[in-house]
Amino acid sequence: MASLLRATATWGHFPWRGYCSRIKQGKLGEDFVQALRAVVGSPHVSTAAAVLQQHGHDESMHRCQPPDAVVWPQNVEQVSRLAALCYGHGVPIIPFGTGTGLEGGVCAVQGGVCFNLTHMDRILALNPEDFSVVVEPGVTRKALNTHLRGTGLWFPVDPGADASLCGMAATGASGTNAVRYGTIRDNVLNLEVVLPGGQLLHTAGRGRHYRKSAAGYNLTGLFVGSEGTLGLITAATLRLHPAPEATVAATCAFPSVQAAVDSTVHILQAAVPVARIEFLDEVMMDACIRYSKLDCSVAPTLFLEFHGSQQALVEQVQRTEEITQANGAFHFSWAKEAEERSQLWAARHNAWYAALALRPGCKGYATDVCVPISRLPEILVQTKEDLKASGLTGTIVGHVGDGNFHCILLVDPEDTEELGRLEAFACQLGRRALALHGTCTGEHGIGLGKRQLLQEEVGAVGIETMRQLKAMLDPRGLMNPGKVL
Amino acid sequence: MASLLRATATWGHFPWRGYCSRIKQGKLGEDFVQALRAVVGSPHVSTAAAVLQQHGHDESMHRCQPPDAVVWPQNVEQVSRLAALCYGHGVPIIPFGTGTGLEGGVCAVQGGVCFNLTHMDRILALNPEDFSVVVEPGVTRKALNTHLRGTGLWFPVDPGADASLCGMAATGASGTNAVRYGTIRDNVLNLEVVLPGGQLLHTAGRGRHYRKSAAGYNLTGLFVGSEGTLGLITAATLRLHPAPEATVAATCAFPSVQAAVDSTVHILQAAVPVARIEFLDEVMMDACIRYSKLDCSVAPTLFLEFHGSQQALVEQVQRTEEITQANGAFHFSWAKEAEERSQLWAARHNAWYAALALRPGCKGYATDVCVPISRLPEILVQTKEDLKASGLTGTIVGHVGDGNFHCILLVDPEDTEELGRLEAFACQLGRRALALHGTCTGEHGIGLGKRQLLQEEVGAVGIETMRQLKAMLDPRGLMNPGKVL
Repeated sequence: MASLLRATATWGHFPWRGYCSRIKQGKLGEDFVQALRAVVGSPHVSTAAAVLQQHGHDESMHRCQPPDAVVWPQNVEQVSRLAALCYGHGVPIIPFGTGTGLEGGVCAVQGGVCFNLTHMDRILALNPEDFSVVVEPGVTRKALNTHLRGTGLWFPVDPGADASLCGMAATGASGTNAVRYGTIRDNVLNLEVVLPGGQLLHTAGRGRHYRKSAAGYNLTGLFVGSEGTLGLITAATLRLHPAPEATVAATCAFPSVQAAVDSTVHILQAAVPVARIEFLDEVMMDACIRYSKLDCSVAPTLFLEFHGSQQALVEQVQRTEEITQANGAFHFSWAKEAEERSQLWAARHNAWYAALALRPGCKGYATDVCVPISRLPEILVQTKEDLKASGLTGTIVGHVGDGNFHCILLVDPEDTEELGRLEAFACQLGRRALALHGTCTGEHGIGLGKRQLLQEEVGAVGIETMRQLKAMLDPRGLMNPGKVL
Repeated sequence: MASLLRATATWGHFPWRGYCSRIKQGKLGEDFVQALRAVVGSPHVSTAAAVLQQHGHDESMHRCQPPDAVVWPQNVEQVSRLAALCYGHGVPIIPFGTGTGLEGGVCAVQGGVCFNLTHMDRILALNPEDFSVVVEPGVTRKALNTHLRGTGLWFPVDPGADASLCGMAATGASGTNAVRYGTIRDNVLNLEVVLPGGQLLHTAGRGRHYRKSAAGYNLTGLFVGSEGTLGLITAATLRLHPAPEATVAATCAFPSVQAAVDSTVHILQAAVPVARIEFLDEVMMDACIRYSKLDCSVAPTLFLEFHGSQQALVEQVQRTEEITQANGAFHFSWAKEAEERSQLWAARHNAWYAALALRPGCKGYATDVCVPISRLPEILVQTKEDLKASGLTGTIVGHVGDGNFHCILLVDPEDTEELGRLEAFACQLGRRALALHGTCTGEHGIGLGKRQLLQEEVGAVGIETMRQLKAMLDPRGLMNPGKVL
């Protein structure tokens, strides 16, 4: 779903977020900016208003909060020196990758220096026999997969957006392939991190890229999903996978949400190694059919994809057809050719634009939750009722194999009352997920928008433990302040 | 390999470990023991010498260091009250599961109270549709799989020993199935942890068992593999998998270590979803052939297992044969029937006894390292040379699909000079793994024996970060003292 937000315009203001009352620290002194320039060179520092504006928001509706300066370090040594400089002067540090986040993770709520890491875009090492690669923070997932062409390997984690891989690690991203290949969390082997004071940490030891270890505390896992609040990720060692020999996709319509979810559970129980299994509700399907000219029914629908050998695919397809038919599926359609497949997934990835077309002139807002898969029918039905009761226009789409789904809501950004309803709805959705033993975010992160929900999710001892972690690694509270906690 | 150590006798003393010089704290006062009894009831506290001795060692050769008392809490409330009591009085706390660890993790190096958690042996919740289960620390992996019979589900992480699942989480265990199903780290969804002072933490929030999340810092990952040094795991929510529809196993001999490892890499690159791929060197094979009457060649050998539908197995088997033959394999033997299979894996699991039989009257010592898979041939060849140079008798066996292997060394416990050579060899093996970008332990943990190697592995900043974590969660240093750091 994250993918859907690639082209979301960012709102100039979004009044219902609570952090707005925080007072910004003063602008940086000229001496300090000179010191930044001394580290990276003048062309790699900017305090131009337009540049600051560009770096003050992601693709969410959180209002733009520009930093006081943007720096483009060229290597890890510069990141380290810049971090030490900022930390020593009490200046907030905000890491910035592609800016494709969805929870306001790059907003400079206290000003400070934005570290734009896109100039560090080398693939530092590729170890095909070990199924691993080391990338700098400017390398995006598409750039990596382009680089891997011809090696027989690929990196499957796909949040939709062409996000930077280190940014994905920072956010704890996942996407459509997670049901088979895991999330970014499962695919990070090692991280190089510049700690707030400038120290360099290799979470699994410098240069290491083993597949498993029982050596000491799991520092890699601690930094994955920390949203830039504990340090700056300056390189990631990632796990690669064999590229699928063959691929086949399908759509499959159901009489009810329950039938679609039951099919998903049965497919997983049958150990069919489905690569993607995406759910779209009938409102989303209606929008996609109209927008992408799909030949599908207006009904709760699964989009599926299978990877394997030709022979294995035949069996996966057959089993899936049996399972879905036993659950009342109709309008089953296989896309075996590459062109058909890409049309199908283009339609899925264009769901965001299809939703926008439901209410021209409005803006889109996406939120995500994740629940145990058995609770999906319940929360989807509740959510559709909540949507109706709220009077909002919205669609549902998600990674049903993980129990993870998204609401795309269409709102008039000038209508304060409607924004209030949107806020209430999003909060209610998060609480419904929590009540069903789920989480308030499966893949978008906490950022600015879900801090209250995080407290409710992990409880007082959990939050206190997280606060202690933050205080331990960032005693001055300068690493991406105001996020997560 | 862990499995192989199930029946290892523990040595009364093992002189070459460095921690022995630490002075034990005094025995507990009678008032304090009475206070323990007040919490759990008299029958659930013991200070009998035999009981203390039983709890002062695991299955490794680290010398027995008994606690001052053993308690058997019946529920998490009692664990919490006991922890608060001990912590308040400055008394060390040592969690104890099945005692099947391999790095001295339960040795009471400063005395204190051993928390034997085996009376808490309930399966608290089973959610078949969500592929999850919640277990107390007394539940072993075999008990869980017995409980799961008939559900179509199983828990695949198999270190060999019938370890407690929470103990496996504490150690970061894995075993023969990790190449396909991941390690325990990949299969823990949530942990209930009693922190040193008695506070109760649910690492992913109370009762939550979603499949993925991007909500806040990864506390679950922090406690997995922390070896009881940060808190007591009192319940684990685990991910379950569909039980394989069909299974087939095989052995396959090679002209060289390189050919066996190349085959492994090619099998993984071909995306054959191998469930187990175990390497045994020719010394280990010779021992197994003699001990278990196997009809195999004395040569570097792979033991393989495949899971899937009947049809999928045919293809997996065919591809694997092609790959291994292309790499010069000979004496390829499939075990399709359950009886043949169990005979094969019994031989694999009896490798420990087979090794012991190589040098009757001696004791076995097992160590484990993990390297990038491409470096396996190099380290295996080096290790065999080191073995020869050291004059020690040893065999090599391991989870080659993960790059993880073990040396089983046979030594005379009365021969101080030989023990010295053993120490030097084990240390050299760890350093060789580190030099090849690997880790000093893939699955046994750091415990007492590998603390120096951990420092070399993660470097000064890594160790300092780990020390800070320890100090943050256990400021008095009473949780399983002397381990990991």
